[in-house]
Amino acid sequence: MRKGLFITFEGPDGAGKSTVIHHVGEKIKQNGAHLLITREPGGIEIAEQIRQVILKKENTAMDSRTEALLYAAARRQHLAEKVIPALKSGIHVFCDRFIDSSLAYQGYARGLGIEEVYRINEFAIDQYMPDITFYLDVPPEIGLKRIEKHHGREVNRLDLESLDFHQKVREGYQLLIQQFPERIIVIDATQSLEKVVQDVYEHVEKVIRE
Amino acid sequence: MRKGLFITFEGPDGAGKSTVIHHVGEKIKQNGAHLLITREPGGIEIAEQIRQVILKKENTAMDSRTEALLYAAARRQHLAEKVIPALKSGIHVFCDRFIDSSLAYQGYARGLGIEEVYRINEFAIDQYMPDITFYLDVPPEIGLKRIEKHHGREVNRLDLESLDFHQKVREGYQLLIQQFPERIIVIDATQSLEKVVQDVYEHVEKVIRE
Repeated sequence: MRKGLFITFEGPDGAGKSTVIHHVGEKIKQNGAHLLITREPGGIEIAEQIRQVILKKENTAMDSRTEALLYAAARRQHLAEKVIPALKSGIHVFCDRFIDSSLAYQGYARGLGIEEVYRINEFAIDQYMPDITFYLDVPPEIGLKRIEKHHGREVNRLDLESLDFHQKVREGYQLLIQQFPERIIVIDATQSLEKVVQDVYEHVEKVIRE
Repeated sequence: MRKGLFITFEGPDGAGKSTVIHHVGEKIKQNGAHLLITREPGGIEIAEQIRQVILKKENTAMDSRTEALLYAAARRQHLAEKVIPALKSGIHVFCDRFIDSSLAYQGYARGLGIEEVYRINEFAIDQYMPDITFYLDVPPEIGLKRIEKHHGREVNRLDLESLDFHQKVREGYQLLIQQFPERIIVIDATQSLEKVVQDVYEHVEKVIRE
């Protein structure tokens, strides 16, 4: 049985997900809650091996369905080894990106179909859908400008995609927000960091109290 | 559009699949047909990398859903890079194990559910289900005895499973035969090699002629 809350964070690179997760996490922990902050592959050896196959620069022949299945496989292993044990022992989990990234990127922007990618992720996730998902919304131009400022971040295949692609990703997320209105909470991430953190924190606090 | 025939071979290890494929293939080629004989990962670099993750002895923490997704991913890549291009150019393809192995081993014998494993494989295969599948049927005791005679074959995790498991695999195949009677042809593989080759060859010849 799941005793902790499973909360995921979504949005384009540059939306500030990891900073927001860090600050909200600190506040939650100060209140005495037990919290695990993670992101796939999250130091899980088998998930790391799978991610290496996905991101390897030489793997240019990677079919988009293969890629979607590999993301689902890495997701499953990270979930099974790290997230589920935490939730079962009453620890809340913040996860930076989860199923909605696959649905928006592979399902919608790459054109595999949200429904089809959902099906393989449903298999991967089994009974562990997130309780809440925060979507940090910024226009892609702003997100990409913020990424350029980050140095020391490893460049991978996905960074090489065009602005058009990132626009499509955002459209994908917008469809998901319509599809899962109970689960996904939209946060305006063009606001100041303090305001974004405050918005997210208030939602989380409320759900933990309930 | 698919112009070649896509024919898969199933059954337990020790049923003689590779020997039968070889002999039937020779006969077909003598008749002037173009034929590709393959098995996953089939020298496809990305599929090989995925298989290495599956079979690595150290990966004892591998979740059974992760494993099923990885098999589906390797399947997709082998299909996309090797099988589909051959079929499109009018070459017939013999493939040693395909979707039914996943359904019988992961879906049924490991208990994930045939229906669930079918769903992720449906995604992997897309429109390329086999035209015909030969199931070489032998009781597991006979199959395992035949394997013991083989030397020089690399030992992997799956070989370590018990006889009970192989009995369950056979039950799984029997369910699939009921579910896909149009596609799966059962061959009694306890017969002499000559007879098995002759049975398979006659079926293949008939379908090629049609």
